[in-house]
Amino acid sequence: MCVKEKEYEYNRDIVVRPVGRGAAAAKDSVNLSFGFPATELLPVEALNRAAAGALNAEGADALHYTGGQGVAQVQEWKLNRLRKFGIEAEAENYLAVYGAGQGIELAARVLLNPGDTVWTEAPSFFNALDAFRHAGAETVGLRADAYGLDVDQAEQLLRSTEAAGGVLPKLIYVIPNFQNPSGTTLPADRRQRLAALARAYNLFILEDDAYGELRYEGHDLPSVYSYAPERVIYLTTFSKTLGPGLRLGTVIAPLNVAERMRVLTLNSPPTPFTLEIVGRLLQTYDYDGQISRLSACYRARRDFMAERVEAELGDAVTFQVPEGGFFLWLSFKEGVSATEIARLAREHGVLVVPGEQFFTGNHAPAPFLRLCFSYSNEQEIARGVHALAAAYKLLIQAQRRSL
Amino acid sequence: MCVKEKEYEYNRDIVVRPVGRGAAAAKDSVNLSFGFPATELLPVEALNRAAAGALNAEGADALHYTGGQGVAQVQEWKLNRLRKFGIEAEAENYLAVYGAGQGIELAARVLLNPGDTVWTEAPSFFNALDAFRHAGAETVGLRADAYGLDVDQAEQLLRSTEAAGGVLPKLIYVIPNFQNPSGTTLPADRRQRLAALARAYNLFILEDDAYGELRYEGHDLPSVYSYAPERVIYLTTFSKTLGPGLRLGTVIAPLNVAERMRVLTLNSPPTPFTLEIVGRLLQTYDYDGQISRLSACYRARRDFMAERVEAELGDAVTFQVPEGGFFLWLSFKEGVSATEIARLAREHGVLVVPGEQFFTGNHAPAPFLRLCFSYSNEQEIARGVHALAAAYKLLIQAQRRSL
Repeated sequence: MCVKEKEYEYNRDIVVRPVGRGAAAAKDSVNLSFGFPATELLPVEALNRAAAGALNAEGADALHYTGGQGVAQVQEWKLNRLRKFGIEAEAENYLAVYGAGQGIELAARVLLNPGDTVWTEAPSFFNALDAFRHAGAETVGLRADAYGLDVDQAEQLLRSTEAAGGVLPKLIYVIPNFQNPSGTTLPADRRQRLAALARAYNLFILEDDAYGELRYEGHDLPSVYSYAPERVIYLTTFSKTLGPGLRLGTVIAPLNVAERMRVLTLNSPPTPFTLEIVGRLLQTYDYDGQISRLSACYRARRDFMAERVEAELGDAVTFQVPEGGFFLWLSFKEGVSATEIARLAREHGVLVVPGEQFFTGNHAPAPFLRLCFSYSNEQEIARGVHALAAAYKLLIQAQRRSL
Repeated sequence: MCVKEKEYEYNRDIVVRPVGRGAAAAKDSVNLSFGFPATELLPVEALNRAAAGALNAEGADALHYTGGQGVAQVQEWKLNRLRKFGIEAEAENYLAVYGAGQGIELAARVLLNPGDTVWTEAPSFFNALDAFRHAGAETVGLRADAYGLDVDQAEQLLRSTEAAGGVLPKLIYVIPNFQNPSGTTLPADRRQRLAALARAYNLFILEDDAYGELRYEGHDLPSVYSYAPERVIYLTTFSKTLGPGLRLGTVIAPLNVAERMRVLTLNSPPTPFTLEIVGRLLQTYDYDGQISRLSACYRARRDFMAERVEAELGDAVTFQVPEGGFFLWLSFKEGVSATEIARLAREHGVLVVPGEQFFTGNHAPAPFLRLCFSYSNEQEIARGVHALAAAYKLLIQAQRRSL
């Protein structure tokens, strides 16, 4: 009965990448890599108070699959809140999920069959690119400019693809506010035209608005959803405002999509215990006050980081100061490998994300780095940008010597 | 640009079923349907105490993606606990997940490609059958007897399928302890032989042990995992002992599988905030005391329900008293539709699950009903079984009249 070891065929769309290749991070590294909120601004005390009382009020219902009153409290609060982005949705359009990330995954699994095509901005959020791959889809990056997705080009491409009998996308994934990683914000007229394209070409828009509450200048714009509620899946999350560790996000979706998502989630709310605590918190919490505190902090850190990058790397990079969100997106002028800069920077004690991770395929069309300004304080940002500049200069000198 | 409405092709493997067809439930219905623990035995006070202090001890780390000390506390506790089932696993084999349900989904997505085949016991847990379908796989039900999966038949089928050049399964899904729904427990020798089959036929076993802690008689048996750690994915959960609303389960998996699961979970723990609270709870909580309390209650409810079924439906059904778990699995002797009995029972004020949901395909080979004895008290159980018997008798009379 015992035969020789055969290779097991795991799911072909899941790619395990080697972790931690390249240099180890120096001790006390500055972390400008992942999109973490500022630790000191997370509502620890308010959550402690809400947690202490949550199960007293509701008994054990919050410990069942279906949850207690927190499920409805969070839903009601969220549906109200979303009106500021022009979203008028009903309970049947709403799902609480494990962060916006689960929303992306559910949308990918519900909308896509293996072999389907998804269009995204290029660059785009790496976890979303992975989710589309895991659903067996092919991802095509579209041109984006200083105002985000180039909707003109998208329309031309849809038209020419249809005319040529090519494969039209089933889904276009966009981050209209303070795009991750580029920081761009899509103007209202482009949002409206994008919504019209979704109607005309029988496709859905997946609108990822993880950062939408964190605007440091200018005015809120209507969501893409507000222009075509029957064709857009809108995602947001409490991760950037109350804390990612709660794993609590929101999906607003058309009925056909929402009911299929409920099949995958077994119609169960994510962690009813957490919803009970957050539901209780939201009854009394000054959420706008929290947004003001976060915005003041992140605006100052953004400006400080921009100033430091200008001072230390002004000749080497171009970048745009985003109206909100967490990130600066640096484009290096000289022909260098961003991956090599990131590797060297790691040795010098600063963690940044090389641009290639934000593009479909294995390399970025130009050397980019993403720097997160939300998580580190000014002292750390100064040290991090200085270390990055030092790594860049070393690399340039080495390249020139080898010419 | 505006074209006529086209049909959008959603994921073909996700089937939306009409909800609530048939009769509405009577007010104050007895719920013997889903596998809920007894509300009054959930550790509300202990969780309140743990929640109140959790963020004081750890600060805001538990609100970040990566979590605080609770992540390691739960891991250490769980790896220790699992030794009682013969599981000697390392941190690299361990993943905390959103309940055993996420473990099933991750295993399905990692191990299967569209068109693959999964073998299960017939009957088997409906959410697992759905998860395999959502992964694009075909599910085949194997014969089970009073001791669970017929491993002899499984071996013969593997041998004959291989000889005929047929499609061998990539995965066999089993619930060895107090199977859901049938209540059977797989003897140690069958576990060992099943593990050997996994090695010989290059397949994985998915061992779902959601109910393993809840044994009301007899002795713990070694897990299937203990016989072939490199070929078994073991699942368990806190849902049946601390509460499903925590959404906290455990996967123990071989490295190749665990690392692919981590790609899908983005290497992030499920709800770090909840892990922080549960980690704190487990430092001082008398878990064995909780198991004793639950076992005493469920043993009494099991015996009471068995006695009531015998008294009210003894001529009509056969069933086996399970050594643990949550369920009685009734097999009707006379040719009736279990779905019809369940529908009528609903009108009479008792919710039960018709057997067809536990079989691949649309109908059960015999009329079965699953009754859950853990959630309802004796008064409710008595009322529920009486209502079920009334519904059955009405149906039988109607059938005889129409002959």
